[in-house]
Amino acid sequence: MVEKKSIDRSEYRKQKGLVMVYTGTGKGKTTAALGMLMRAWGQDMKLAMIQFIKHEKSRYGEVRAADKMGVEWHVMGDGWTWTSKDMEQTIQRGVEGWEKAKELILSCNYDIIVLDEFTYPLHFGWLEVSDVVTWLKANKPEMLHLVITGRDAPAELVAYADLVTEMREIKHPFSEQKILAQPGVDF
Amino acid sequence: MVEKKSIDRSEYRKQKGLVMVYTGTGKGKTTAALGMLMRAWGQDMKLAMIQFIKHEKSRYGEVRAADKMGVEWHVMGDGWTWTSKDMEQTIQRGVEGWEKAKELILSCNYDIIVLDEFTYPLHFGWLEVSDVVTWLKANKPEMLHLVITGRDAPAELVAYADLVTEMREIKHPFSEQKILAQPGVDF
Repeated sequence: MVEKKSIDRSEYRKQKGLVMVYTGTGKGKTTAALGMLMRAWGQDMKLAMIQFIKHEKSRYGEVRAADKMGVEWHVMGDGWTWTSKDMEQTIQRGVEGWEKAKELILSCNYDIIVLDEFTYPLHFGWLEVSDVVTWLKANKPEMLHLVITGRDAPAELVAYADLVTEMREIKHPFSEQKILAQPGVDF
Repeated sequence: MVEKKSIDRSEYRKQKGLVMVYTGTGKGKTTAALGMLMRAWGQDMKLAMIQFIKHEKSRYGEVRAADKMGVEWHVMGDGWTWTSKDMEQTIQRGVEGWEKAKELILSCNYDIIVLDEFTYPLHFGWLEVSDVVTWLKANKPEMLHLVITGRDAPAELVAYADLVTEMREIKHPFSEQKILAQPGVDF
């Protein structure tokens, strides 16, 4: 839908690789990143996904879909949760995920790269936010779109991003109706 | 990611068809609905989409993707914007879209149906909200997931829904940097 008033588009830049952040506590962050991949796949764009938290052995619906679509997909997490015991391994996997992200970003082989749940390694200090943002400013190719999801996006990342949406939870069936995660909806 | 405290899951219902609403002014509403379709497609679920506003002749990335995926897709809108002149036709298309939605819902042929930008016909009164909610309460199959997107979700719809996320615009490249819609990102 377009804006109410008419727009002088002559002063608008046509194209730019965007840094997009989906954050907040509501449902829809990773889901929106998946939607971007689906839409861009329909436009025959070159896509890659790195999942920072989900376990490498997980076979979520999105991983199965990516297989069928031929989208490059890296599940780099160790299934970290609040009750995880081996934090050293979790942090190590976060660092490895970021190394993989840098490799993909520098390759110039992609139109869109998604760093799913990448805010957690930043928020919890497994990676230095300022190091990451400084690196991206210096190295992200001009036309590459980067999508970053997860709660608690650090202020420095928000300041750097071109687009930030906060998913606000208004109602959630988990907390209100005690309904568990379901296939197709949550995984 | 799981909650901080441990949960007694014995009292939780396993499954229920959910009514999910993605609303608010931020980017990510339709995009999250597309992500749900991609995830559910990976789970081999039966899917249908009705787009209420987008023009039937539009060839957005998501329509191209749906073609490739074999997802049933109906573009029922006439490309309505704030500057549209033929409101009679726009309203007529909204009514026809809702008739199609009812047909698909009653067929019991789907696991997930998305009604994209369905809040606009409701918000602008092209359809009566209370009629729509009353019909859904009486007729939506128990296990069917229904996803509804668009700004200004009416209160009666929010009250009926199981899950509501408000996409809040924190930063947007259109308003802040005067960057136009781009393929893969916006369509």
